[in-house]
Amino acid sequence: MNFNLKNLPKREKKPRSKGITMVIDKGSSIQQCKNLIESSSEYFDVIKFGWTTSNFMNNLKKKIKLFKDADINVYFGGTLFEAFAIRSQIDDYISILKEYDLNLAEVSDGSISIPHKKKCEYIEKLSKHVTVFSEIGSKDEKKIIPPYKWIRQMKAELNAGSKKVIGEARESGSVGLFRSSGEVRQGLVEEILTEIPTEKIIWEAPLKAQQVWFVKLLGPNVNLGNISGNEVISLETIRVGLRGDTFNDFL
Amino acid sequence: MNFNLKNLPKREKKPRSKGITMVIDKGSSIQQCKNLIESSSEYFDVIKFGWTTSNFMNNLKKKIKLFKDADINVYFGGTLFEAFAIRSQIDDYISILKEYDLNLAEVSDGSISIPHKKKCEYIEKLSKHVTVFSEIGSKDEKKIIPPYKWIRQMKAELNAGSKKVIGEARESGSVGLFRSSGEVRQGLVEEILTEIPTEKIIWEAPLKAQQVWFVKLLGPNVNLGNISGNEVISLETIRVGLRGDTFNDFL
Amino acid sequence: MNFNLKNLPKREKKPRSKGITMVIDKGSSIQQCKNLIESSSEYFDVIKFGWTTSNFMNNLKKKIKLFKDADINVYFGGTLFEAFAIRSQIDDYISILKEYDLNLAEVSDGSISIPHKKKCEYIEKLSKHVTVFSEIGSKDEKKIIPPYKWIRQMKAELNAGSKKVIGEARESGSVGLFRSSGEVRQGLVEEILTEIPTEKIIWEAPLKAQQVWFVKLLGPNVNLGNISGNEVISLETIRVGLRGDTFNDFL
Repeated sequence: MNFNLKNLPKREKKPRSKGITMVIDKGSSIQQCKNLIESSSEYFDVIKFGWTTSNFMNNLKKKIKLFKDADINVYFGGTLFEAFAIRSQIDDYISILKEYDLNLAEVSDGSISIPHKKKCEYIEKLSKHVTVFSEIGSKDEKKIIPPYKWIRQMKAELNAGSKKVIGEARESGSVGLFRSSGEVRQGLVEEILTEIPTEKIIWEAPLKAQQVWFVKLLGPNVNLGNISGNEVISLETIRVGLRGDTFNDFL
Repeated sequence: MNFNLKNLPKREKKPRSKGITMVIDKGSSIQQCKNLIESSSEYFDVIKFGWTTSNFMNNLKKKIKLFKDADINVYFGGTLFEAFAIRSQIDDYISILKEYDLNLAEVSDGSISIPHKKKCEYIEKLSKHVTVFSEIGSKDEKKIIPPYKWIRQMKAELNAGSKKVIGEARESGSVGLFRSSGEVRQGLVEEILTEIPTEKIIWEAPLKAQQVWFVKLLGPNVNLGNISGNEVISLETIRVGLRGDTFNDFL
Repeated sequence: MNFNLKNLPKREKKPRSKGITMVIDKGSSIQQCKNLIESSSEYFDVIKFGWTTSNFMNNLKKKIKLFKDADINVYFGGTLFEAFAIRSQIDDYISILKEYDLNLAEVSDGSISIPHKKKCEYIEKLSKHVTVFSEIGSKDEKKIIPPYKWIRQMKAELNAGSKKVIGEARESGSVGLFRSSGEVRQGLVEEILTEIPTEKIIWEAPLKAQQVWFVKLLGPNVNLGNISGNEVISLETIRVGLRGDTFNDFL
C-alpha cells in the first residue's frame, strides 16, 4: 500500500491459501491482460477464462504465460469441461490441459445433468493430472439445490480430490448462492459453514453488495470469485475496511 | 476456435451476409480499438460509432482505417444523420461520408419526427452514395409503434434502397423491440418475421438475455447489433451453444 | 468537434470553472490512463481516484503526472481523508498531499460521523495547503439529510474555505442526491438551488438518466461528477443535445 494507515486488519500476502481473489476474464486482449497485471497483480491469485471463452481467444498460450509469469494461476471455466464431457471427449480435454500447460482445472455440472457419482469420478480422474476446483450449483435459476445437498456434494467432491469447492453465481450474480435478485441465500451459506471450512470454499460474488456481505461475515481473508478485472482494487478496499460499505467494520 | 469440440452448430465465416455481429463504440481510444481488433476481429462484422459520438472522437480517420484494415465495416450512428437532417444539412452529411471514406450509413428517425415518405426519400438519396442501413423504432419509450406499422415501414425502407433494416433498442436495451424492463416484445418480433426475411434484419440486442432470446428463436446466425466490444466473444459462445444459456439448445 | 453542426448550444472550453466533468477512476493502469487522455482529455477537467483506491495503485506518482500534464486536475476520494481523520492522522494526510504534489483535496463525512463544526475546521485547515472540494451527504442510504440541512452545511463549508461543494451519489448513484432506485431527489435539488449558486456545486451523477436530468434542468454547463471514464464522450453528447435524451431540448 502507498500510505501508512494505522490499524488496518491483517490481509494475507501472496502466495496465499486463504483470502484468494479469483478474477473472471471473458476475452481480453494481450494489452488488456498487461493492464490488469500492471495495476492489480498483487491483489488477485487466480484468473478464470470464463465458461468457454478460451475456445475463442487469440494468443491463448501467450495470455496464459503472461499471467503465470505474474504469479497468477490460470484455469478454464467449468462450462468448457462440461462441453467436452457431454461430447465424451474428456481425454481430449486432458490433452488440452497439457498442451496449454495448465496445472488447474474446474469440474462442474452447471449446464449438464450427471449423476453426482460420475462428477466425482471426473474429479478423481482430472486430479491425477492437475489441481481441481469443483463447482456446486446450477446455472439454471429454477434448479434450487437444498443446503443439505450442497454440503453432501461439497464433502464428496473434496474427498474425490478437489482442492477447493466453488459456490456458483454466474457472471451476473443471480443463481446458485444467490436469488435471482442477487440477494444472498444467507441460510444456505450459514448452513454450509457449519460443516465445511471456509478456507476450502471460493464464493463467487460478482456484485459489490455480495462481496460486502461475505467480507462482513467472514472477514478480509474470505475467498471470493468471479470478480471483474476492473473491480479487483475495489474489492481490496472492501476487504480491509477502506470503502464506505465496510469502513466501520474493522475499526 | 482453439479446441476441437465435436458437433457444434455451423457458424457463418467472414465475410458473411447473415450471422452479423454489429458492435457499438462510444469513444474508444486508438489502443482500445487495437485491443478489440486483436481479441475479437473475426467475430464481428460492423462497428457503429454510436449516436453522435463520432463528432467528439479524436483520431477519427485513424480509427476508421484501423477497423477497415481488419475487414470490419464502419458507420456513424443514426442520431448523427438526424442531427444533420433536422438542421437541413444533409448535403453536409453526404460530404462527411465522403471525407471520412465511409461506404455505409444509417438513416433513422429515433429522435426526430418526420413523415415516413420523407425518411424513404433520405434512404433513396443516401443509397446513391453509400450502402444504407435504416432503423425502425423510436428512442422514446412512450412512442410504441404497432407491429403492422413496423412491417409496413420495413418494407418501404427496403424498397427505397436500405440493404438491411435495424430494430431499435438503444444502448440500454429498453425501447423499440423491448419493453422498458428489457423484455422482448415477442409478439412484435414474431409478426415481423412472418413478412420480412430475417437476413434483412439486424436486431439490436445489447443485453445478454436479449441475445439469448434471439439465438434460441433464430439460431446461431441471427444478425445482432449494439453489442458491447467486451461482449463479442461472449455472444459468440452463446451463438454456438457454448454458454449455459444455450448449452442445451444445439446438442 | 469533427463536424460543423449548426446551432449547437454553447459549451464552455477548458480551462473552465463551470460545466466541469469530474471522472472517477478506481484503479486504471498507466496504459488505461493514456487511453482515457487520448480519447477524452478535452472533455473532462478533474479526475478523482475514488474513495481509497489511491492507496492500492501502482505507479501512483506517474498516474498523477500523466493527468496533470494533460491539464486535468487530480484528487483523492473523500473516504481516504476520512480514513486518516478517524485515525487522528490528518497531519500524515497533509504530508501525503505534498508528497504526491496534489493541489486539490476532498473533505467529506460520508462514512464517519463528526460534528459539522469539526468538518469545517478540517476544511479550513486543508484549504491552507490545497484547494478543497467538500462533499455533503452520507454513503449510508438510511441517513437522509433534509434539504434545509444540506443548504446550511453547504453554506458553512463554502465559508470555511471550500471552493466547491459536491453532492454525494456514490459510484452506484443510489444515495445522497438520489433515492436507492437511482431516482433524483428533485425537491432537494431544487431547494438547494434557491440558495446556492449552481457554479459552486458538483453534482455526482453516475447514471445516464441522472446526467440527463441535470442537463435538462441546468443546461449544458452544469458541473457533474463520478462519471465513468468510458462515459465522458457520451456525457458530452448529452450536454449539447446530441443524444436522443436531450436531442429536442436545445433545438
